[in-house]
Amino acid sequence: MLLEQIQQTNDIKKIERKDYAALAEEIRQFLIEKISVTGGHLGSNLGAVELTMALHLALNLPEDKIVWDVGHQSYTHKLLTGRREGFDTLRKYGGMSGFPKRKESDCDSFDTGHSSTSISAGLGLVRARDLAGGNHTIVSVIGDGALTGGMAYEALNNAARMETNFIIILNDNNMSISENVGGVSKYLNNIRTSNAYLDVKDGIYNTIRKTKYGDGIVTGVRRAKNSLKQLVIPGMWFEDIGITYLGPVDGHDVNGLVRVIREAKRRKNCVLIHVLTQKGRGYAPAEKHPARFHGAEPFDVQTGLPLRKKTKANYTDVFSTVMVKLAARKQDVVAITAAMPDGTGLKRFRSVYPDRFFDVGIAEEHAVTFAAGLAVGGLHPVVAIYSSFLQRAYDQILHDVCLQNLPVIFAIDRAGLVGSDGETHQGIFDLSYLSSIPNMHIMAPKNKWELSDMIKFAYDFNGPIAIRYPRGEAYDGLADARSPIVYGKSEMLAEESGIALFALGSMVETAVEVRNRLKQQGLSCTLVNARFAKPIDAERIRSLAGNHTLLVTMEENVASGGLGEKVRALAEEERLGIRVLSVHIPDEYVEHGNVDILKKEIGIDVDSICEKIRKEIQG
Amino acid sequence: MLLEQIQQTNDIKKIERKDYAALAEEIRQFLIEKISVTGGHLGSNLGAVELTMALHLALNLPEDKIVWDVGHQSYTHKLLTGRREGFDTLRKYGGMSGFPKRKESDCDSFDTGHSSTSISAGLGLVRARDLAGGNHTIVSVIGDGALTGGMAYEALNNAARMETNFIIILNDNNMSISENVGGVSKYLNNIRTSNAYLDVKDGIYNTIRKTKYGDGIVTGVRRAKNSLKQLVIPGMWFEDIGITYLGPVDGHDVNGLVRVIREAKRRKNCVLIHVLTQKGRGYAPAEKHPARFHGAEPFDVQTGLPLRKKTKANYTDVFSTVMVKLAARKQDVVAITAAMPDGTGLKRFRSVYPDRFFDVGIAEEHAVTFAAGLAVGGLHPVVAIYSSFLQRAYDQILHDVCLQNLPVIFAIDRAGLVGSDGETHQGIFDLSYLSSIPNMHIMAPKNKWELSDMIKFAYDFNGPIAIRYPRGEAYDGLADARSPIVYGKSEMLAEESGIALFALGSMVETAVEVRNRLKQQGLSCTLVNARFAKPIDAERIRSLAGNHTLLVTMEENVASGGLGEKVRALAEEERLGIRVLSVHIPDEYVEHGNVDILKKEIGIDVDSICEKIRKEIQG
Repeated sequence: MLLEQIQQTNDIKKIERKDYAALAEEIRQFLIEKISVTGGHLGSNLGAVELTMALHLALNLPEDKIVWDVGHQSYTHKLLTGRREGFDTLRKYGGMSGFPKRKESDCDSFDTGHSSTSISAGLGLVRARDLAGGNHTIVSVIGDGALTGGMAYEALNNAARMETNFIIILNDNNMSISENVGGVSKYLNNIRTSNAYLDVKDGIYNTIRKTKYGDGIVTGVRRAKNSLKQLVIPGMWFEDIGITYLGPVDGHDVNGLVRVIREAKRRKNCVLIHVLTQKGRGYAPAEKHPARFHGAEPFDVQTGLPLRKKTKANYTDVFSTVMVKLAARKQDVVAITAAMPDGTGLKRFRSVYPDRFFDVGIAEEHAVTFAAGLAVGGLHPVVAIYSSFLQRAYDQILHDVCLQNLPVIFAIDRAGLVGSDGETHQGIFDLSYLSSIPNMHIMAPKNKWELSDMIKFAYDFNGPIAIRYPRGEAYDGLADARSPIVYGKSEMLAEESGIALFALGSMVETAVEVRNRLKQQGLSCTLVNARFAKPIDAERIRSLAGNHTLLVTMEENVASGGLGEKVRALAEEERLGIRVLSVHIPDEYVEHGNVDILKKEIGIDVDSICEKIRKEIQG
Repeated sequence: MLLEQIQQTNDIKKIERKDYAALAEEIRQFLIEKISVTGGHLGSNLGAVELTMALHLALNLPEDKIVWDVGHQSYTHKLLTGRREGFDTLRKYGGMSGFPKRKESDCDSFDTGHSSTSISAGLGLVRARDLAGGNHTIVSVIGDGALTGGMAYEALNNAARMETNFIIILNDNNMSISENVGGVSKYLNNIRTSNAYLDVKDGIYNTIRKTKYGDGIVTGVRRAKNSLKQLVIPGMWFEDIGITYLGPVDGHDVNGLVRVIREAKRRKNCVLIHVLTQKGRGYAPAEKHPARFHGAEPFDVQTGLPLRKKTKANYTDVFSTVMVKLAARKQDVVAITAAMPDGTGLKRFRSVYPDRFFDVGIAEEHAVTFAAGLAVGGLHPVVAIYSSFLQRAYDQILHDVCLQNLPVIFAIDRAGLVGSDGETHQGIFDLSYLSSIPNMHIMAPKNKWELSDMIKFAYDFNGPIAIRYPRGEAYDGLADARSPIVYGKSEMLAEESGIALFALGSMVETAVEVRNRLKQQGLSCTLVNARFAKPIDAERIRSLAGNHTLLVTMEENVASGGLGEKVRALAEEERLGIRVLSVHIPDEYVEHGNVDILKKEIGIDVDSICEKIRKEIQG
């Protein structure tokens, strides 16, 4: 086993050149085996094996820095930097993160998770290096999908025409999570399939470069103000703004990659290396179904099928179904995703209503303002973006949708704790950032039927409105509680006196259990499904104050700007005289791990809540 | 007067061609005269006179739609759509907005204020038109400065290779508010100064186009897969991603502009017209000092000098001075602006420390993640961005700076009400969006000396920290109160009992007056300068609860996620038994107008606060 020889950073440099292919194969087998057990990002990692090997061979870690965009393709990097054992606890609570983490290794130079940040971060490292007089190499690795995100372009614009070395590796697998969209993607694809690429090994460019004065001539050609350069050098789009383009190069040829990275290191400016890789490479099921193996649940290595059969529908499925039905009835319904037709459940909508479906790429800001434009144009857009990714569009929601009070529906999946993706992906801020915005309305369903009802309500509402719902299996309890959704009104689920639980969305399921526990202890307990986080149901809270001594608000969100604070403000302003206990996520980042464990750790599981209530009533 | 003939939309079509130049001159004189009295955006409007005339001539409003990016260049458009009288109340409370407003005119198709949104919004209008089977024309007008914003690129990427008409006008004055930055800007500049431009009227491109089959040939040439096209047609950067490029064209030649817009209307795809304009055109002082006349205070038309002499320093001046001093002492201090070296006060820093100054263009997202990279690289960056523009970078603050707990200082100017720029520019959400983020710390100074002290404190603090301060003259009262800034601690300004005022930043000045008024009424009143909005000074609040019956929190921010909610949460959790009255900005957008009037309207002026307190203590 070659992999046995790699115990720590730079051990790969002891491997003989002839064994690179065998090592790549071993790494792939290792990743497939481990991820099949723990789950994790498979396709992107299988695609980046040789690229990562080449980076480790051509660079000197940890002095040199690699900034991984998104970061879920960093598994081989983790393997090559002494974290082999970590794969047994990958994405588990207390175990190894699925993303780069500076606290895990000095070879992880920047924490990531969201898309399109690596060039900005790398550029910061470059400027800091130069001011300190350092001469190490900084490489940002960005996927072609991430390149559809605007901030990557902002960064490219700033990296252009620099007079210092900075290497950007464009890891082009012609995919984001699903197929790529937009003009830039098609432009890159043209390069992929052009003769320039097919002939790259023997082409004019390389022929020149191999001669004694090759580099000088190539630079000369690049600088020449005649357009013939377009003929021999692809990637003029980058050259035009002042970034040296090298490529395209085969992303599965370790030696070729090492050569081009070494060449790039010699330049005194920003160099983009266009590397062509294949997502899922070396594992047939992942090559065939790249979207399914993007973030995979544990699977059977032989068949590629998930080990755990899905038994219950999740909220995404419900959303998927309702959207198709709604669109059939309402001609003005259109749907928008930011590169996630699968993840958001809009794939079905796309197949039934392709003209009314818009995948804008990884471009949340554009997605929201585009939706505002659609709404002004008379349509009723539904923007489906995960809670943590919608953070990107805070200003667009505030400035483009809500200021004009436009009928845009935000379908916010992955709201609340998401589990194994960890800190960067927890959807625990949306109540806060959305609540601060005038004209915005926010709902959260208690169970799968209520999500369906809320989508229909949101359509009829005709103003900016968000529905947040969590990742994973949809709650199918409380099936009988299906009173119509009324604007700003909560739903009474069990009316008693004493303690009142006022729970939002996913916390209603928890509240049911809390109530059962309290009942067992002989406590009288009312249960209300809040339904609306903004506006809150003031009338209900007044009425609860009349015959309860404690009001317990429950939400899967941080406190600041959340449900509890709003209820408290009302209780105080109207002197309702009821104590309010707010159950919420503490003011800290919540790491990766099983959601049930996380809830216990941060004190929003049934036990912790019951304990908080006990303390409160003993006061 | 030709302008007399223009009473309503499309009246310009009655003006004879030969009179266009004279009309443009009259419009310029009108704008200069009016803006010299009211203040407003001058330079960008003087630059866009002919372009706006051409749009109104070539289009059919209000059926056709113009989306103005940012929108402060829309004055001529307002003038040509029956809003001449409005210029007497420009940017005044209840008067005409300085930005497009759909409620003002059916010719304003999309409300704007922030940069880089117009292509996204326009694209939404295009898709809505097509789904409805309409055939009107949609034009997005974007400046070259706004093109440095990432979401413009996200939108371009989506507009590329469309098979329907959409016109983007690139209004290229080679400036954002200050000089432009980055590779794209230099690329555009190369086009401006290339022979292709100088010869454009008689060049190959136009010669071909004038022939019978001209358009066909041009299209053919464009499509030809040989790189010679680069020789005759500039703008390949756009063509490469699938957007037809027309230009560059002279932005002060009405007839030429009308011709090219009409040509663009015939295309069945996305067309970008590159229009070259001069900011401040026709008014010598504005041509010479474009940054000063970007947003101008009332000025003397003859001299171009401001009518009102500045007597007191504003917070921006204080920031400016302190930054230069701090940088002299601390070698790791670097400063970042997003296209606003003047507005943020970093111009002096730039001149003294050019290597440590970074203007990233209108690119707030990149600015923040770039700062995170600088911090990881060992520097101590200060990011100076206005409150409402920093909304753009919410995710980057959360995901790139605070998650890694990096020492980045956010200098947030224009926090609170900004006045005449109105709804889109009020900085009334930053306490909310920043408070929701773990690891973030927030301060606000009571007066000019405290801003200075807080900047120094923030440097020593060594973690993510924001300082918010308002637009305009800095408060120079309470000069003697200069106790050292201590982490998380407030400052006691006047200790009594009964009512306690707990005021943040700009509201301390108001609180001083409120206290005087209450004292006159014989009420005992404590005054505390909160200093920190996060974390709040729990110890102080506990102690105030001991000998006060009412705690009045005062902040220039909306309630959700603000100071009042945090104080209330503490009072409730710790059963402090003190009533909390929260004075804050209501949950609504606040329009343009004089700040004193606005404060009265929304109930945060001295009178309103005294009245609220009176009700509360009688309550």
